[in-house]
Amino acid sequence: MYEGLKGFTDFYPDEMAPLREVIDTIEDTARAYGFRETSTPALEPAEMWTDKSGEDIVDELYDFEDKGGRHVTLTPELTPTVARMVVAKQQALSKPIKWVSTRPFWRYEQVQQGRFRELYQTNADIFGSSEPEADAEVLAFAADSLTNLGLDGSEFEFRVSHRDILGELLRSFDADVDTTEAIRAVDKRAKVDEGEYLGLLSDAGLSYDQAREFDDLLVAGDDDLSALTDFSDSDDLAAAVENLRNVLAAAEDFGVREYCDVSLTTARGLDYYTGVVFECFDASGEVSRSIFGGGRYDHLIEEFGGQSTPAVGVGIGVMNSTLPLLLQTHDAWPGEGIATDYYVLQVGDVRSVASRIARDLRERGHVVETDVSDRSFGAQMNYADSIDAETVVIVGERDLENDEVTVKDMESGDQTNVPVAEFPGDSERPTYDEFA
Amino acid sequence: MYEGLKGFTDFYPDEMAPLREVIDTIEDTARAYGFRETSTPALEPAEMWTDKSGEDIVDELYDFEDKGGRHVTLTPELTPTVARMVVAKQQALSKPIKWVSTRPFWRYEQVQQGRFRELYQTNADIFGSSEPEADAEVLAFAADSLTNLGLDGSEFEFRVSHRDILGELLRSFDADVDTTEAIRAVDKRAKVDEGEYLGLLSDAGLSYDQAREFDDLLVAGDDDLSALTDFSDSDDLAAAVENLRNVLAAAEDFGVREYCDVSLTTARGLDYYTGVVFECFDASGEVSRSIFGGGRYDHLIEEFGGQSTPAVGVGIGVMNSTLPLLLQTHDAWPGEGIATDYYVLQVGDVRSVASRIARDLRERGHVVETDVSDRSFGAQMNYADSIDAETVVIVGERDLENDEVTVKDMESGDQTNVPVAEFPGDSERPTYDEFA
Repeated sequence: MYEGLKGFTDFYPDEMAPLREVIDTIEDTARAYGFRETSTPALEPAEMWTDKSGEDIVDELYDFEDKGGRHVTLTPELTPTVARMVVAKQQALSKPIKWVSTRPFWRYEQVQQGRFRELYQTNADIFGSSEPEADAEVLAFAADSLTNLGLDGSEFEFRVSHRDILGELLRSFDADVDTTEAIRAVDKRAKVDEGEYLGLLSDAGLSYDQAREFDDLLVAGDDDLSALTDFSDSDDLAAAVENLRNVLAAAEDFGVREYCDVSLTTARGLDYYTGVVFECFDASGEVSRSIFGGGRYDHLIEEFGGQSTPAVGVGIGVMNSTLPLLLQTHDAWPGEGIATDYYVLQVGDVRSVASRIARDLRERGHVVETDVSDRSFGAQMNYADSIDAETVVIVGERDLENDEVTVKDMESGDQTNVPVAEFPGDSERPTYDEFA
Repeated sequence: MYEGLKGFTDFYPDEMAPLREVIDTIEDTARAYGFRETSTPALEPAEMWTDKSGEDIVDELYDFEDKGGRHVTLTPELTPTVARMVVAKQQALSKPIKWVSTRPFWRYEQVQQGRFRELYQTNADIFGSSEPEADAEVLAFAADSLTNLGLDGSEFEFRVSHRDILGELLRSFDADVDTTEAIRAVDKRAKVDEGEYLGLLSDAGLSYDQAREFDDLLVAGDDDLSALTDFSDSDDLAAAVENLRNVLAAAEDFGVREYCDVSLTTARGLDYYTGVVFECFDASGEVSRSIFGGGRYDHLIEEFGGQSTPAVGVGIGVMNSTLPLLLQTHDAWPGEGIATDYYVLQVGDVRSVASRIARDLRERGHVVETDVSDRSFGAQMNYADSIDAETVVIVGERDLENDEVTVKDMESGDQTNVPVAEFPGDSERPTYDEFA
């Protein structure tokens, strides 16, 4: 007996049905915004991450040397791949480029409760606009995805921050600060104790007092961004604050401002982010970990050898992620299970007629099963129950002598005889598509 | 500038749109037959293939040692994974188990024209029935997938063979035959010259004359299976021939017999197959390589440590495969491209109204884009063209003074002024779902 690898999940149909509903809802939301589907490789050259993405993700890279001696990696996230694709066809693609896809990613993490080595995300990215409307559209897509899944606006929150605000604030101190290191420290703020956090800021170049003041400013800024521009008269800081305000104003017009809280201690773990970044959290606090996040990465395309191209995106974890927990916590988990419109039950030597009926119902758009195991009436009826068949069409030798079949409604138990020629007639169920 | 790995493909939206249509058609066909979706790991313990699957696939395994020192592999095919999953929950699953999924697989092949290291398949499998109806249902699902894709029955053929017929025929010879080796030789018949083929059969234990006679029998059997039972009075051979006849009779009742040709020189490359095996080919011969294949593997679940459970399945390659070639050859390639219902064009300071209109249209099920790049009228109109917007709603400051917007039908070029309050009204397009 073989066992699957730790950190990887087998999804059986009863687990997959609600997840498929979740994915379809998010993808339909993306489609409504005009995001277009791409499909991308599972493996990439490892240097696409080791060069630019920062130590957190490199530590968890599921990388190896392939048989040709190349250092390759199972992709831990989509952003570098789509950046590579934009660079490869930069001239041919009309801007803005709006892409969406759902696929697995891999991280060599310590396996523990709620942490997986294989996770699935729907990613949506916009390339080619530096305007606040692009950031806001990503926020709007993410918020609409959650409300379309049935969540109420009071059940989730987007903690919105801005990398340039953090960077310019740090540069306003009279100190030689490694801003990348300092922003990594901010990203760890909620995960380590205060002493360790201040220590990390101090490692990045701030004095202890400066680290305290910096952190106080972040907290004060959440309530009123003016606290930041009051602290420093840096034009770049003022521009970053203005950009964040503009994104929030666009989010207001897009109908999603109510989900956004300014939270400058939100930093995101990846080095390539530039402007607005955000993370979605459970507003009730019951799910303590981040649900998903995204942000702006205006320099990555150029760093990958392309023309300067602003970009902003979000990756919503859909399987082996915290989103199912959020939905379950707020009773928004889809009830989808196995469903079947018809089971065509065969009694005696009736395969030819039963097959024609099954075929006819399938052509009308129904989900139809029939006996492929040569089983008894009782065994077939049990199976029809197990697949939640709504109607059982009993095709029996004796009924067929009168050119009839018996139609049993499984909920009411009602049985009626129907002439084969008129079936399904009035007893036809709505199809899956009609129902959707 | 980074390059993706050789043998892997980036699918851009204009390439992905028709492929998504192909996948949806095949998955909808599977759903109509009651196959239920699963989702499965990309990585598995390598011994799941090295133990049982045969040298052809082991030679191409994309395997490596992970950071924990385990010998793991990117899965080259689905069958061992679903077999493992059936074993793990054998008691809880009601039979027959009918599963479907679409996902990538990986093989470390020599990269050349038409050969990829990452390929995508839709797999459908039935576990728990040894009856011919199960084999025939897999054939019917595969055939319906192709006809639902728009192929005519004259444009493809299923070459149907039977592993037990091959095995029992080989055992009928007065020789010490390694049937696994001999069947591998049959699988190579079309790919090597006659001398090499006979040599492989001779390596497996047949004399040169026996090898000739065996091959003549396979060819004669294609026309009339009685040639085989005339050659040997083995009961097991007679039972295997009877089983193949029964599968073809069930395929007749299921409406797909016309696509099936008996072809005993079809063997399939994997060692775990037992009864009926088949491969789909282009009937015109224009695409010379196999399109896809499947078959029965009644022993694998038991070999994986489960209770004896018959099984039959098919894996239809959908991307980086020969299916797109077959569809293109017969003018059945979907015409799907980028499509957009509405572009909401903004002139002046109208974001608030334009956003409300876009939002309203999305809630009605439309695909809607609006300006996120602060662009001019002309640039927005060009973009609307590039995304094939069917209608452009021009929201301009001046029109808004009269509470109007301008609606432009992009095909006819007709423009009409519509009161904002009444929009979309009569100018509403059918939604994607209505259209589908």
